[in-house]
Amino acid sequence: MIRLIVCGKLKEPWMRDGVNEYLKRLKAYDRIEIIEVADEKAPENNSDAQNEIVIRNEGARLLKQIRDDEYVILLDLAGKEKDSVAMAAFIQDLYDHSRSRIDFVIGGSLGVSDDLKKRADFRWKLSDCTFPHQLCRILVLEQVYRCFRISRNEPYHK
Amino acid sequence: MIRLIVCGKLKEPWMRDGVNEYLKRLKAYDRIEIIEVADEKAPENNSDAQNEIVIRNEGARLLKQIRDDEYVILLDLAGKEKDSVAMAAFIQDLYDHSRSRIDFVIGGSLGVSDDLKKRADFRWKLSDCTFPHQLCRILVLEQVYRCFRISRNEPYHK
Repeated sequence: MIRLIVCGKLKEPWMRDGVNEYLKRLKAYDRIEIIEVADEKAPENNSDAQNEIVIRNEGARLLKQIRDDEYVILLDLAGKEKDSVAMAAFIQDLYDHSRSRIDFVIGGSLGVSDDLKKRADFRWKLSDCTFPHQLCRILVLEQVYRCFRISRNEPYHK
Repeated sequence: MIRLIVCGKLKEPWMRDGVNEYLKRLKAYDRIEIIEVADEKAPENNSDAQNEIVIRNEGARLLKQIRDDEYVILLDLAGKEKDSVAMAAFIQDLYDHSRSRIDFVIGGSLGVSDDLKKRADFRWKLSDCTFPHQLCRILVLEQVYRCFRISRNEPYHK
């Protein structure tokens, strides 16, 4: 079972449609769920201390959704990159070793809390580039879909 | 002036909406244009030789759109990564040195031709992950938008 645990509701209709498209495709491979926790307001004029509180509060809410027996892949710019083929092998290896409850966790607009980093089993850098955390949902779902296709030797275009 | 030179028409309405959203935002910063050249059919049962022809034909069409005085950033999995701040500085530097006609070129579903690689002024790896070339249009536009925001010290959320 794959879950995406994320902050806030998607604002843009096109992003919702993109997410739904990949959810539909992924259903052929495993159960898939998106858990949205409430996000915090983070106005531009927030102090660093206020931003720290936002990160901590959002992090606590994300953390609360994670079960002890789940394998946690945290999206983290300070994490490690993997190419799609390596990621497919990595996910397949988790399934093969009965770690078949996998959570992909995406922090809010200010980043991820230290507590989340500690809980993460793998911290995944999707790219050196920063992308909006909401757009990352599409990117993660697309990669998970690609992983299943690669692992099953099914054709999949670039 | 920023141009995206790409293969084929977008199939998914949500991708078109995503592209249009970033085009709208980008208009505040510079002229921006998307040039779509015809893509080739690439059936799964194509031989390697047939796939080579697809890459070469699509590459030739993309190349034909590029003017001699344009700076070409080619999306290429064998290229170099840059984080968003470095990319912003890089683009700003091009503008500062009157290289203000910049083409981002995205190959088709099978990859990019050798001729395109030769013409490219910079080969940019967006991520170790492979993403669909059509989705890459959104990712490139989002990064270009982010670059302008960063260069102007305008706030921009993750």
